[in-house]
Amino acid sequence: MLATIMYKAGDVRVESIPDACIQQSTDALIRIIRACICGSDLWPYRLKQPDGTGQNMGHEAIGRVEAVGKSVRKIKVGDVVIMPFAYSDGTCDFCNEGLHTACTQGGFFGNAEVGGAQAEALRVPQADGTLYALPVAEDDALMPSLLTLSDVMGTGHHAAVVARVGKGKKAAVIGDGAVGLCGVIAAKRLGAEQIIILGRHPDRIELAKQFGATNVVNERGDEAIARVRELTDGFGVHSVLECVGTEQAMATSMGIVRAGGMVGRVGVPHYDQIPQAQPMFYSNVLVGGGPAPVRAYIDELLPDVLEGRIQPGLVFDRTIGLEDVPDGYRAMDTREAIKVMVRP
Amino acid sequence: MLATIMYKAGDVRVESIPDACIQQSTDALIRIIRACICGSDLWPYRLKQPDGTGQNMGHEAIGRVEAVGKSVRKIKVGDVVIMPFAYSDGTCDFCNEGLHTACTQGGFFGNAEVGGAQAEALRVPQADGTLYALPVAEDDALMPSLLTLSDVMGTGHHAAVVARVGKGKKAAVIGDGAVGLCGVIAAKRLGAEQIIILGRHPDRIELAKQFGATNVVNERGDEAIARVRELTDGFGVHSVLECVGTEQAMATSMGIVRAGGMVGRVGVPHYDQIPQAQPMFYSNVLVGGGPAPVRAYIDELLPDVLEGRIQPGLVFDRTIGLEDVPDGYRAMDTREAIKVMVRP
Repeated sequence: MLATIMYKAGDVRVESIPDACIQQSTDALIRIIRACICGSDLWPYRLKQPDGTGQNMGHEAIGRVEAVGKSVRKIKVGDVVIMPFAYSDGTCDFCNEGLHTACTQGGFFGNAEVGGAQAEALRVPQADGTLYALPVAEDDALMPSLLTLSDVMGTGHHAAVVARVGKGKKAAVIGDGAVGLCGVIAAKRLGAEQIIILGRHPDRIELAKQFGATNVVNERGDEAIARVRELTDGFGVHSVLECVGTEQAMATSMGIVRAGGMVGRVGVPHYDQIPQAQPMFYSNVLVGGGPAPVRAYIDELLPDVLEGRIQPGLVFDRTIGLEDVPDGYRAMDTREAIKVMVRP
Repeated sequence: MLATIMYKAGDVRVESIPDACIQQSTDALIRIIRACICGSDLWPYRLKQPDGTGQNMGHEAIGRVEAVGKSVRKIKVGDVVIMPFAYSDGTCDFCNEGLHTACTQGGFFGNAEVGGAQAEALRVPQADGTLYALPVAEDDALMPSLLTLSDVMGTGHHAAVVARVGKGKKAAVIGDGAVGLCGVIAAKRLGAEQIIILGRHPDRIELAKQFGATNVVNERGDEAIARVRELTDGFGVHSVLECVGTEQAMATSMGIVRAGGMVGRVGVPHYDQIPQAQPMFYSNVLVGGGPAPVRAYIDELLPDVLEGRIQPGLVFDRTIGLEDVPDGYRAMDTREAIKVMVRP
């Protein structure tokens, strides 16, 4: 079958690899209906050092179940399913607490052991816990929005939940990538009265406004901090959704958060320490976040997608076939596309 | 009047200074009935560089109101009051949210502008917002426990609240000083099923056990982390109450917190960055805390003190007169005393 393999920065290929198959009794085998390229895939696309092996790419998908292992009880052959970016058994203490990304039997897609979703098919461990069967057919018009529940919409929602966005609160979203845009949707959905988007790409900013952003801050660094404070009576925002992952984005977060406020970070961190531990202390600021337990959020978000109240699928502005995945990486890397959907 | 002035590390004196008096219409003047020496006072006692001026010391007190400014409405002459370590107007947005330590009109005691409580008398700004009138006489046997509501009990409670201690949860308290010991009381009071105290002073550990600690960890650093994990099935605790403020204490916190758990830090931080930002991210750990809004917590904690359900006053193991304050610092610094109460 065909699958996407990353060899080193800038070198991503679609290649023939052995067919995915059931290995464990708890596995399912899915045929990929829709996959996509993630902002986090751009980190290895920019930085990966060659190490003689390739990395299987892709961790977001909707699929059709083709086979299940003999212990699988809930998921059936033929189901159209959302595949969250992490697999989880759905039964451990962490899953029961809603933190599926800390599942004791869990892990992530997109590596040699588990394979990637930018492919024709994929083995899904812990199928009963991981997969979410949808009540729609595989050609449904809502596919793009449903696909975002495998990662970016759930991740934007996680940033908003961790940052305690609520009715009447002021929120800022750092980053205008697909996750940041979904963060705007999430903040609006949770009742924020002011949503400031920090970003500078005109097409993305337009979409952010459509999703509910009330203010746009194009500046960066200290200028961005000053501008957000100006927009919030000098006090800053209750909730910061940090959707980038750089040290500068964290420093900006600390500069714009209100005393007693919360920074929810979902950008994969490319820094080792959280800056400004003392100002953060004196203003009782909280910092949290991490890989979103998107599996836990589907129950809450799915009705809003199915009934059209939110349209996160609008973050996809390009659809390609599997053979064009390398060009999809290029288009996202150069900001030609916000997010690229793949139809194998 | 007599007051305590710190000139430099190791040099603290009780000296005659001009009498405290009403300066603003919102002030009250209180006669100090009880004050005490705080673990945080030991930081300047160890580190303060001489700068030609002295620092007024003391930020915890119970007092009797002797005079009020003409705008003061609620607090009356003769009231016996708790004086929290920070003053606050009680009416701004932050006070209304329960974060009195971020009050827009607020500030801290123990400096040249506002004076300190290790003295015969003190001017209290924003008297109506700051002071809490007690329903007891000034010679009440509960004075030591009531005094802790001005700082250490409220601070231990803040650590527990921020760290989301709850029914059936596992908690660890780092530090066996007065705040850590009050953190044990708070964790027990909020329903923790396991309370691990990390400390190594036998007298304090005994008190921690009396307050509800279920396990004691004497080790430090990596050994302490291994021991706590051993005591918690390998996963760590839901809630860490960080009551020290050193870089090592934060590193230990990160090492013992469970995925999805929370570190509530109330030790005044003597570090600039929060370590392990990446492991913290991948396990969705939250870090928060800061100067406790003890004024907000008195309503909740006072009934438990008055009815004897908690006895935080047991942290005081020495009582001295004002003239002996320098020796009180020495005794706390050498760990001869846990916490020293002052009766001017």
